Amino acid sequence: MNSRPFIHEDFLLQTSAARELYHGYASDLPIIDYHCHLPPQEIAKDHRWENMTALWLGGDHYKWRAMRTAGVNERFCTGDATDWEKFEQYAAVMPKLLRNPLYHWSHLELARYFGISDRLVNPETARGIYDECNNQLADPGFSCRGLMRKSKMEVVCTTDDPVDSLAHHAAIASDASFDIQVRPTWRPDKALIIDQPAAFSAWLDLLEQASGVSISTLSDLMQALQNRHDFFAAHGCRLSDRGVDTVWAEDCTESEAASIFAKARSGGAVTAEEAVRYKSYLLHELAMMDAAKGWTMQIHYGALRGANTRMKNLIGADCGFDSIGDLPVAAALAKHLDRLDLTGCLPKTIIYNLNPRDNELVATMLGNFQDGITPGKIQFGSGWWFLDQLDGMTRQIESLSQLGLLSQFVGMLTDSRSFLSYTRHEYFRRLLCNILGNDIEQGLLPSDIPLVGQMVADISYHNARRYFGFYEK
Amino acid sequence: MNSRPFIHEDFLLQTSAARELYHGYASDLPIIDYHCHLPPQEIAKDHRWENMTALWLGGDHYKWRAMRTAGVNERFCTGDATDWEKFEQYAAVMPKLLRNPLYHWSHLELARYFGISDRLVNPETARGIYDECNNQLADPGFSCRGLMRKSKMEVVCTTDDPVDSLAHHAAIASDASFDIQVRPTWRPDKALIIDQPAAFSAWLDLLEQASGVSISTLSDLMQALQNRHDFFAAHGCRLSDRGVDTVWAEDCTESEAASIFAKARSGGAVTAEEAVRYKSYLLHELAMMDAAKGWTMQIHYGALRGANTRMKNLIGADCGFDSIGDLPVAAALAKHLDRLDLTGCLPKTIIYNLNPRDNELVATMLGNFQDGITPGKIQFGSGWWFLDQLDGMTRQIESLSQLGLLSQFVGMLTDSRSFLSYTRHEYFRRLLCNILGNDIEQGLLPSDIPLVGQMVADISYHNARRYFGFYEK
Amino acid sequence: MNSRPFIHEDFLLQTSAARELYHGYASDLPIIDYHCHLPPQEIAKDHRWENMTALWLGGDHYKWRAMRTAGVNERFCTGDATDWEKFEQYAAVMPKLLRNPLYHWSHLELARYFGISDRLVNPETARGIYDECNNQLADPGFSCRGLMRKSKMEVVCTTDDPVDSLAHHAAIASDASFDIQVRPTWRPDKALIIDQPAAFSAWLDLLEQASGVSISTLSDLMQALQNRHDFFAAHGCRLSDRGVDTVWAEDCTESEAASIFAKARSGGAVTAEEAVRYKSYLLHELAMMDAAKGWTMQIHYGALRGANTRMKNLIGADCGFDSIGDLPVAAALAKHLDRLDLTGCLPKTIIYNLNPRDNELVATMLGNFQDGITPGKIQFGSGWWFLDQLDGMTRQIESLSQLGLLSQFVGMLTDSRSFLSYTRHEYFRRLLCNILGNDIEQGLLPSDIPLVGQMVADISYHNARRYFGFYEK
Repeated sequence: MNSRPFIHEDFLLQTSAARELYHGYASDLPIIDYHCHLPPQEIAKDHRWENMTALWLGGDHYKWRAMRTAGVNERFCTGDATDWEKFEQYAAVMPKLLRNPLYHWSHLELARYFGISDRLVNPETARGIYDECNNQLADPGFSCRGLMRKSKMEVVCTTDDPVDSLAHHAAIASDASFDIQVRPTWRPDKALIIDQPAAFSAWLDLLEQASGVSISTLSDLMQALQNRHDFFAAHGCRLSDRGVDTVWAEDCTESEAASIFAKARSGGAVTAEEAVRYKSYLLHELAMMDAAKGWTMQIHYGALRGANTRMKNLIGADCGFDSIGDLPVAAALAKHLDRLDLTGCLPKTIIYNLNPRDNELVATMLGNFQDGITPGKIQFGSGWWFLDQLDGMTRQIESLSQLGLLSQFVGMLTDSRSFLSYTRHEYFRRLLCNILGNDIEQGLLPSDIPLVGQMVADISYHNARRYFGFYEK
Repeated sequence: MNSRPFIHEDFLLQTSAARELYHGYASDLPIIDYHCHLPPQEIAKDHRWENMTALWLGGDHYKWRAMRTAGVNERFCTGDATDWEKFEQYAAVMPKLLRNPLYHWSHLELARYFGISDRLVNPETARGIYDECNNQLADPGFSCRGLMRKSKMEVVCTTDDPVDSLAHHAAIASDASFDIQVRPTWRPDKALIIDQPAAFSAWLDLLEQASGVSISTLSDLMQALQNRHDFFAAHGCRLSDRGVDTVWAEDCTESEAASIFAKARSGGAVTAEEAVRYKSYLLHELAMMDAAKGWTMQIHYGALRGANTRMKNLIGADCGFDSIGDLPVAAALAKHLDRLDLTGCLPKTIIYNLNPRDNELVATMLGNFQDGITPGKIQFGSGWWFLDQLDGMTRQIESLSQLGLLSQFVGMLTDSRSFLSYTRHEYFRRLLCNILGNDIEQGLLPSDIPLVGQMVADISYHNARRYFGFYEK
Repeated sequence: MNSRPFIHEDFLLQTSAARELYHGYASDLPIIDYHCHLPPQEIAKDHRWENMTALWLGGDHYKWRAMRTAGVNERFCTGDATDWEKFEQYAAVMPKLLRNPLYHWSHLELARYFGISDRLVNPETARGIYDECNNQLADPGFSCRGLMRKSKMEVVCTTDDPVDSLAHHAAIASDASFDIQVRPTWRPDKALIIDQPAAFSAWLDLLEQASGVSISTLSDLMQALQNRHDFFAAHGCRLSDRGVDTVWAEDCTESEAASIFAKARSGGAVTAEEAVRYKSYLLHELAMMDAAKGWTMQIHYGALRGANTRMKNLIGADCGFDSIGDLPVAAALAKHLDRLDLTGCLPKTIIYNLNPRDNELVATMLGNFQDGITPGKIQFGSGWWFLDQLDGMTRQIESLSQLGLLSQFVGMLTDSRSFLSYTRHEYFRRLLCNILGNDIEQGLLPSDIPLVGQMVADISYHNARRYFGFYEK
């Protein structure tokens, strides 16, 4: 047994160069978290958690998946067990999580927010840690905003449906006592689901209400979307997002798209081929809206979602039953971006792949559309979802480095539903410094700490600050 | 030159933590080899080998491929050269195998079974090694069973066709002097080859004989298969297997499958699309049989087999002319498992991919179907075939670790035709300990040898013991 | 800051074994560069460069991509900025290239050809380096041939269209004062572009002129190609190449191909399916020509070319707007090689994939067609284009090692348009030695420097010397 705690000040930093880089150029920087799934109402109301289970395990499908894999009954994941029972079960699973990112994340969160780094989580330590955390949660600094301040947040971008009222964002923005920027992100995925008639129709009804536009034609739809796009912009939105199985870029004229939409809107079923053409059309139009406003467009592609029908029926979507898909993407992604670029309507773009076998494909796709005007205009998104871990992020950094420019990278985002996950930025900065420190020790980079340190600082903070326009006007 | 032999007690173990883990928690454990291709008749008859070529080179397509690549004539691989000539040629090729897994395997086998670790194999040492090995082969301990005992085998699962009589398995089981479990594995690949009319028909005839069921309809086929499935169970079978190009999960009703089967059985040619639907239907039904008995289903997918027609015509199949394919699999694999899960008929499952670019896809697929009841119910199989080497196994372990739970892994299997290949378990345990030892040294795992050591022991032996049910009843 | 220069004598060599291997077995060997894109006319005329920008930045799409990514205007890449301005801009971007291969390549080229290793390139050092290089360029040793001699070149194979007159090759060959072999390579890509009617037709006209064969039928085409193939052979050609999106191997009889060709030749548009069948036919026939002459066939597949229409319209092709594709290839590649092998017409073949996710697919494909006669007959090409960097080459070496025989590898090629890029051979040799040195230190290879050193020398030089037949006759 090592007398040094598992999470210590040089965690992940294997070389002296890495330690110099991290402590000298990264650790003190504030955080811009340009993509997450935090609930804005919790920030608006400065939510507090009644206990550690609510804060730490609630809504965390990563932990549920791990627990199920270890043979823990659903009752203790999403079911009706007590909060202590759930915590206890998770603590019992922790020793089985060695090498899984949860092992690092969980201990890092306990260390950074609760100062608990003298013990590993396991059945013996579970009760003590639970009680100690719960006690601290009573402290004023453990409200939602308290945690954000403690994490040195400057900007947080949530993920929002075009029909959202953004009332919570408005409330936060008008609260002079809270100066962390909380911005909405435009995610119009529902506008694409023409192949899910009931859900599509229901959503169009909501969009009618939100926009005040009656939607019977494609042109109505586009007007309603534009209306909401403007509304989001007025509420500080600077990024859009789309979550897609793959990218679609079939040829589809406006009148063809209009026919397909009309068919769907009148209750008809569209064919698979029609759906793809409609989606191709819409992806293009949506991107043009983003370009017109100078927003950054995010594309998250490659998930195979809702793989377990039984559990979806039982407990709903987004509970940890998704995995990595393998659809082709290169030709369509290139065509999508090319058509936009050809008319001068390619927005700043961040591409996130879920299957790491596409890392090199994506990293080289960027270069096709860098325009020599906006530095790092097309970005390779940091390791997403399943790839948001040591191996996944390391490989993304390696691909981006060798095939693009690491120095232009806008860096880390949490993509998270938890207010404790800002430690992921620390985790990212540490592994970045470790990679660079190893390179220095091996002579792959010049032994010039200020030179490399500047890149560390840029990736950790300054690039994002420059890129997104959060501080403009 | 190093005075330490190439294969020494700390081979592959680069850190002191790795050495503690291996020697303290792995090296002494017995072996459960739950998937191999050993010929049961050799075990039944306690086969002996007349010389080292018969034992070491006979049937080893890995070695033949390497020899052909080095320009060695087929005569010395599968041809009519003398045994000494074949050995001599392989020995001459050995110095050209640096970095190929054969270089480690070959030296490890010589060290462990023959105590030869003071020399590297090369043209100069060939004759001496050949003679020394041949002398030892005369020793009683070098029979088939002797080698199994020396390797601390507890369970061996062979791979068998449903039409096999299992006579050798029965003979072994009834031999009170031999207490290593030798179990059959149900591999009904031939039931799927509806697109190879002659072979399919010939096999159905054999199935009729073995089952006593006359097969003219799909229902007959299913009855015959069920009959043999029961027979295999009675002979100790606890695992099934299927070797498929990819996974098929098209919709196909029983009556559609029956029509397709009837067409084929009456000598008609089925279309490619019909073949896929039939295979989809059958994969589902076969899995349900396994689930009903609590067996573990293995899926080996992704090979491109028999690529060299000239050599297939010359010397037959399985002689080293197969490679890695690139068919899509995610959607069909998910659908296959989902349909089974939906009706409560998903067996314990081990998925083996041959193309390592699918590692993350598979590792995340597991989590979709872990049921919170059986720990590690859905498994990511250890590096298969071409991937059964340092890089391949390391990457499988990395993917499983980051995307699933390494701690639940049932670990290594030989997949081998050779009685010397049990050293692969040693090789696996060493590389596993090395990975974990490096993690400890780098602070990625707690410096807690008993904690990590428990995981090593579980993966090396105890998980498989718990998972398969070989010790029940 | 380290007092040792960034590029020092042990650059990339992390272990003493690596240093022994490189300095003892690799560094002094001459270079066989069997695939590049150098302009033969420059060699014929012993071209000189007026300044460092012309030599270092002209035509280098790698550098342009990097500059655009960093936000440098096209004016300074392919535009009308002055040479000094372009150099200055590149120098300003250099500190942003940390971890990109250009950072190593650029500094390595300055060190090896200009002796500049005491400074890193950046805005402060730009002017001094520019002037110093320009001064040296006036030296006689800095002509095209001077650089080749300084690099210890023995053989250089350019890449040429079948319609090329090879006049420059003839001129070089007949110049007794220059003894470096400069051979053409047969790259008949244009014969495949039946789906680009205008370009196809224009090229066929050129082929008519070059061959003296009037081309109206497929048979004419084949005769014209054979004519030129013989002509290339007479001018020292020993390799062919094809650059293809993927490999095509559909069934297509000669008469079917003839019909498709006739349709195209008479101005008709062929369907996508017809184009694929024609290409399948032609790939097969072209390979047979190569086999008949004992040439080595190179297949470069997997690029997605010309992704940016706007820039293609603006500045043309091959300016840095290509990326990595994801088309399937396994079945067709196997079928292509199998059909050739079946009739004894499979030439020596080198396969280069652009998407590294195919590394293992390719590395195992080799083994299907190794014939036990020509050592390493089927080769896995060294990391190509985007993969010609530390990570890409390391992974290619790892896959080839584990799945084939590294020892038979014909090694590095520059694939370059620049006379400074011979340092890539040095870079390759260093990283190869570093990999092997690490293996020795970790006990993965025997601690036997002469044994491993022989492999280093073989891969660096002797294998290529034996394989291609450049020194025969």
